[in-house]
Amino acid sequence: MTLTVAQIVERIGGALEGDGCAAIGGIAGIADAGPSEITFLSNARYFAAAATTRAGAVIAGREWTGSCNAPVIRVKDIEKATAAVILLFAPPEVRFEPGIHATAVIAGNVKLGKDVYIGPCCVLESGVSVGDRTVLVAGCYLGMDSVVGSDCLFYSHVSIRERTRIGDRAIIHCGAVLGSDGYGFVPEQKDGKLIIRKIPQAGIVQIGDDVEIGANVTIDRARFGRTRIGNSVKIDNLVHIAHNVSIGDCTGIVAQVGISGSVTVGSRVILYGQAGVAGHLEIGDGAIVGARAAVTKDVPPGTHVSGYPAMSHDKSAKAHAGLMRLPQLKNRVTSIEQRLAMLECVSDAPGNVERPAKK
Amino acid sequence: MTLTVAQIVERIGGALEGDGCAAIGGIAGIADAGPSEITFLSNARYFAAAATTRAGAVIAGREWTGSCNAPVIRVKDIEKATAAVILLFAPPEVRFEPGIHATAVIAGNVKLGKDVYIGPCCVLESGVSVGDRTVLVAGCYLGMDSVVGSDCLFYSHVSIRERTRIGDRAIIHCGAVLGSDGYGFVPEQKDGKLIIRKIPQAGIVQIGDDVEIGANVTIDRARFGRTRIGNSVKIDNLVHIAHNVSIGDCTGIVAQVGISGSVTVGSRVILYGQAGVAGHLEIGDGAIVGARAAVTKDVPPGTHVSGYPAMSHDKSAKAHAGLMRLPQLKNRVTSIEQRLAMLECVSDAPGNVERPAKK
Amino acid sequence: MTLTVAQIVERIGGALEGDGCAAIGGIAGIADAGPSEITFLSNARYFAAAATTRAGAVIAGREWTGSCNAPVIRVKDIEKATAAVILLFAPPEVRFEPGIHATAVIAGNVKLGKDVYIGPCCVLESGVSVGDRTVLVAGCYLGMDSVVGSDCLFYSHVSIRERTRIGDRAIIHCGAVLGSDGYGFVPEQKDGKLIIRKIPQAGIVQIGDDVEIGANVTIDRARFGRTRIGNSVKIDNLVHIAHNVSIGDCTGIVAQVGISGSVTVGSRVILYGQAGVAGHLEIGDGAIVGARAAVTKDVPPGTHVSGYPAMSHDKSAKAHAGLMRLPQLKNRVTSIEQRLAMLECVSDAPGNVERPAKK
Repeated sequence: MTLTVAQIVERIGGALEGDGCAAIGGIAGIADAGPSEITFLSNARYFAAAATTRAGAVIAGREWTGSCNAPVIRVKDIEKATAAVILLFAPPEVRFEPGIHATAVIAGNVKLGKDVYIGPCCVLESGVSVGDRTVLVAGCYLGMDSVVGSDCLFYSHVSIRERTRIGDRAIIHCGAVLGSDGYGFVPEQKDGKLIIRKIPQAGIVQIGDDVEIGANVTIDRARFGRTRIGNSVKIDNLVHIAHNVSIGDCTGIVAQVGISGSVTVGSRVILYGQAGVAGHLEIGDGAIVGARAAVTKDVPPGTHVSGYPAMSHDKSAKAHAGLMRLPQLKNRVTSIEQRLAMLECVSDAPGNVERPAKK
Repeated sequence: MTLTVAQIVERIGGALEGDGCAAIGGIAGIADAGPSEITFLSNARYFAAAATTRAGAVIAGREWTGSCNAPVIRVKDIEKATAAVILLFAPPEVRFEPGIHATAVIAGNVKLGKDVYIGPCCVLESGVSVGDRTVLVAGCYLGMDSVVGSDCLFYSHVSIRERTRIGDRAIIHCGAVLGSDGYGFVPEQKDGKLIIRKIPQAGIVQIGDDVEIGANVTIDRARFGRTRIGNSVKIDNLVHIAHNVSIGDCTGIVAQVGISGSVTVGSRVILYGQAGVAGHLEIGDGAIVGARAAVTKDVPPGTHVSGYPAMSHDKSAKAHAGLMRLPQLKNRVTSIEQRLAMLECVSDAPGNVERPAKK
Repeated sequence: MTLTVAQIVERIGGALEGDGCAAIGGIAGIADAGPSEITFLSNARYFAAAATTRAGAVIAGREWTGSCNAPVIRVKDIEKATAAVILLFAPPEVRFEPGIHATAVIAGNVKLGKDVYIGPCCVLESGVSVGDRTVLVAGCYLGMDSVVGSDCLFYSHVSIRERTRIGDRAIIHCGAVLGSDGYGFVPEQKDGKLIIRKIPQAGIVQIGDDVEIGANVTIDRARFGRTRIGNSVKIDNLVHIAHNVSIGDCTGIVAQVGISGSVTVGSRVILYGQAGVAGHLEIGDGAIVGARAAVTKDVPPGTHVSGYPAMSHDKSAKAHAGLMRLPQLKNRVTSIEQRLAMLECVSDAPGNVERPAKK
């Protein structure tokens, strides 16, 4: 498909600065875009590259005040405009027509909503309930008595253990696991031998509406009660959420984060990649946890923490900057000690300053 | 199901302090529990909350000496008592009746024990052996000549590569992978071009008895010989264990830990979440490796290490506390330098202290 | 199978030092090897153990100059020789004879090369293309219009989302996911309520030739354009690669590394285990990123960075060594302050050094 720059403006809005005739057939990053592609300036990091881009057109917000050779579509919301242009040139979305594949294995007393798609090699155990229009792409497993809402989309190899409850419009990516046993063991002596006894994990996982869960994520069932994921929570790939964790609405959890047992995370929190949270802590509403932060105590609402161990981001940034200059600091201290020794030596010399004091 | 507090005491033991008549229908955390729920005080962190809990009853050990409005069941082993109460109110465990599902794909020369359950879409390659009463829930893959013991429970989408050997009573959670190739490559020049040659990974993975392996864990096969997981080892989700690692009996490995090739971990070790261990190291029996610790040298038996790089926990705690105060330390050094310069200036002044020394 | 030491020399080359008659039936590590096993000295860490090894023979390079009781096969390339001996004693590789299993689900318009093996419970959606001799072991999912080259080997439960393109000779381990949606969301107010809007992820993943991808790895599709993995890239288990990342040829990525969106990694880079890279950064050709490094700015070609935050490895090693001695440094500063205060006190005393200056 090809659109002129003017046609793109018609569809996504914004003000055209320059010529609208160029034919555009796709979208690309500012460094890669050629004359038949449109690019965008959403990240200040790339503003300088605008001057030399070969792109056929540029979408820009008001923050960018530079100039470039291509026509510019000036928009109010650069993220929204870029998303709209991506969709203009995107291939058609994959559609799964309602139906149940012949190789799907569905127990007798399963309740399926209307217009569901149950793909090849999916397994639904007894007592499962699936809402209207939900799609299970292929090879998904729904354990006994699990409940899945309407308009959900589960990609291949999703595993849902028994009694898990999932709301509407969930998107769950390949290989994610919901409801695996929490990690709980007690060492015990038995007949003079060490035994590692398993603590029963009898609770469930409960997922709100509009949740997205990344590929190969693991969310453990509760020891009792529930591990709770609120509405509109968005979880990236390879995240681990332990038993009895509670995550508030609209919270984002970036890839490879790990959250220990019984942690309570508030609403609108962001945990950046590879962060970790120790057990039984509370992270308040609106908090930001930096990438790789190691959270070892409660995080008050609205605060930004980072570092190892995590502390307020300002403090952490200063401390870690100090860490980089630690060898110099050590040299300064060594030099001070030498100068001080010299002064002390002088001060001890006969006929010297201490004498009057001794009088 | 509902039980009176007195009935609960009958079943789990302990001494009742207060009235035994209240009807209890479930268990909940101290903050969430209502009048028809029992709660417990296993973590000192929650002791203060006992005073205001709305729970219908409280299980407590002797460590807790506070008071609360609800009747208390005083027990010797709080963890054991809590586990017992969880089971009292738990829904019935999922049972898989012995049998082989019609969609399971089982090669000709597979040896199955009695009363096994081989669920839908499981694939057992030739030469596989499975012990008595073992359950493969669904979509599990057992590679050629792999051996699985008795009374094992594999949840959905477990992958066991060829020749892996697993003992009795293993619990393996969804998506875990055992026996994938170790990561081994050698860069080589070939006709003036860089080639990355694969090192053959011809060994196996061998798992002891009573092992539990978390969801989406990966354990690589050995380059030669075996990657060895001892008896009663308990591994949490998303852990990575590289080729030729050896893990001793009763060791615990918490979520997202990574263990590099040829590491030897002793018995009764605990590696907490997100810790990492560099290649070829030894971690002695009974050692504790703190969360997020980066182990770069051997850890002696019975020691507790933490930090980046990992050092003795005491030392690490002090060092990291110092890191937090590094900006202040730097300010102190700057102030010292100023004061010192002033003193030196005085000391150089004419008619000053050095004069007598020069005499 | 058993070979004499002399027969091993015949097959792998090298010079025999000592007696060639001993019968060898396998290979083992230097600590474990018994009289009927051969061992090797590829890592200087194990050189000392050679003196006491019980092995029936030892393969050694020229770097090792010690002595041992067993005959030595002296070789030029210890890694190559060891690999050759491993293969001598390795069990036969698992072979999958060409064919399409009856339980594989293959859409109407799929293009299969000659001599492919499509194992049990594999699902190939419409428009898929698979090259000659490629093997899909079991339970693999290939999404709509995905393209897989020749001589590939996909182990069980691999998930390939729609339109992903994979070159020749790829090895993909169990549970890996290619083409999952990138993590992209925009918070929005709608009718006074916070909405987390999904940014469309309309691009693809493109994988070069000779790539190996570890178990349970996740590689996200691009927001637009492609997430690109170059030729001969080798990726270990549980690695996360976000949308629009580009990885150059012959780069190695060790277990549990996380690479954020739009990062460009050059050729011949090594990222060691658990390292993380923040978004939109560039890592130059031939760079080395240490284990657990947290990369927060561009890494120039050929440099070695490590630490948190990542800096040049030399600097980081010094800084972290300084961190370990931080409590001592603090004590030195405290002691300096006391000595300084004493000097200042003296210097302020009546009849003291300042007096002449005041004149």
